[in-house]
Amino acid sequence: MEIREAREGDWAQIWPFLRDVVAAGETYCWPRDTTEEAAKAWWMAKPGGRVFVADDGGRVLGTAELHPNQPAAGGHVCNAGFMVAQRAAGRGIGRALAEHVLDQARNAGFRAMQFNAVVETNHNAVRLWQSLGFSILATVPGAFRHPVHGFVGLHVMHRSLEAETHGV
Amino acid sequence: MEIREAREGDWAQIWPFLRDVVAAGETYCWPRDTTEEAAKAWWMAKPGGRVFVADDGGRVLGTAELHPNQPAAGGHVCNAGFMVAQRAAGRGIGRALAEHVLDQARNAGFRAMQFNAVVETNHNAVRLWQSLGFSILATVPGAFRHPVHGFVGLHVMHRSLEAETHGV
Repeated sequence: MEIREAREGDWAQIWPFLRDVVAAGETYCWPRDTTEEAAKAWWMAKPGGRVFVADDGGRVLGTAELHPNQPAAGGHVCNAGFMVAQRAAGRGIGRALAEHVLDQARNAGFRAMQFNAVVETNHNAVRLWQSLGFSILATVPGAFRHPVHGFVGLHVMHRSLEAETHGV
Repeated sequence: MEIREAREGDWAQIWPFLRDVVAAGETYCWPRDTTEEAAKAWWMAKPGGRVFVADDGGRVLGTAELHPNQPAAGGHVCNAGFMVAQRAAGRGIGRALAEHVLDQARNAGFRAMQFNAVVETNHNAVRLWQSLGFSILATVPGAFRHPVHGFVGLHVMHRSLEAETHGV
């Protein structure tokens, strides 16, 4: 398994599983019927953004994107998104992507990583981020309409990328 | 003083003071040299957004914009931005705009309003939002590079718009 920068041609392999994640509607705020064109623009072409893939011998099994969470005076804090193919769940791909993206973000000079909207019922993700040193700064009550659980909270999660807080 | 929906022609009066607020760099993450074209797109043309102005006998002294904070499954929580002309500070224009926008948001069916990035040294704004029923859910440490104070925090602020929590 190699984590590498995405190439234009990777999209054809990203879209099928990204579409499935979005269509499930349980972890992202995107419209569940997001078109391929909109999804590609959102994932692959964010201002100042970079995209990575988990490449298993030519099969793309996961992807991550990294971008500044705010422009200009807030541009030293990054945000990132992660999508893993359902058929590849449980193999540590999300963690491998996250570790790579955290390293890349630190090397790029970002001082912290912030997630704005982690669905509180997405327990695997919350546990993963916590195990990687993120803390829950706040939970915005009822901010996510979950197709099964109804209104649930969105966590704001954060971790510093500065030297004194490495050691995860 | 009338608070009303913005018209296309209002931009010519909005831009001079919006430019000044952005150029000061103390309250918004926008690039301090944001172009008029970019600013107009950002303020006047957000997806699903509405724009309001404070109109004092034909002089536009302040503006607000209201939009969903997240798409789709997060689209029932709104976000808003406010800009007041420096020359009109201290006249309650920000409060009048905010009260109007809160009413409009409630009438539009939003369940809550969330601010993602209130600069913690912007004490007037923090006090205003608290007096209007907002609470600080979290402060993202060092997330804003202030031109005078250096790295300061960004507050995530929130208030419900549901009936049982009116009464402000």
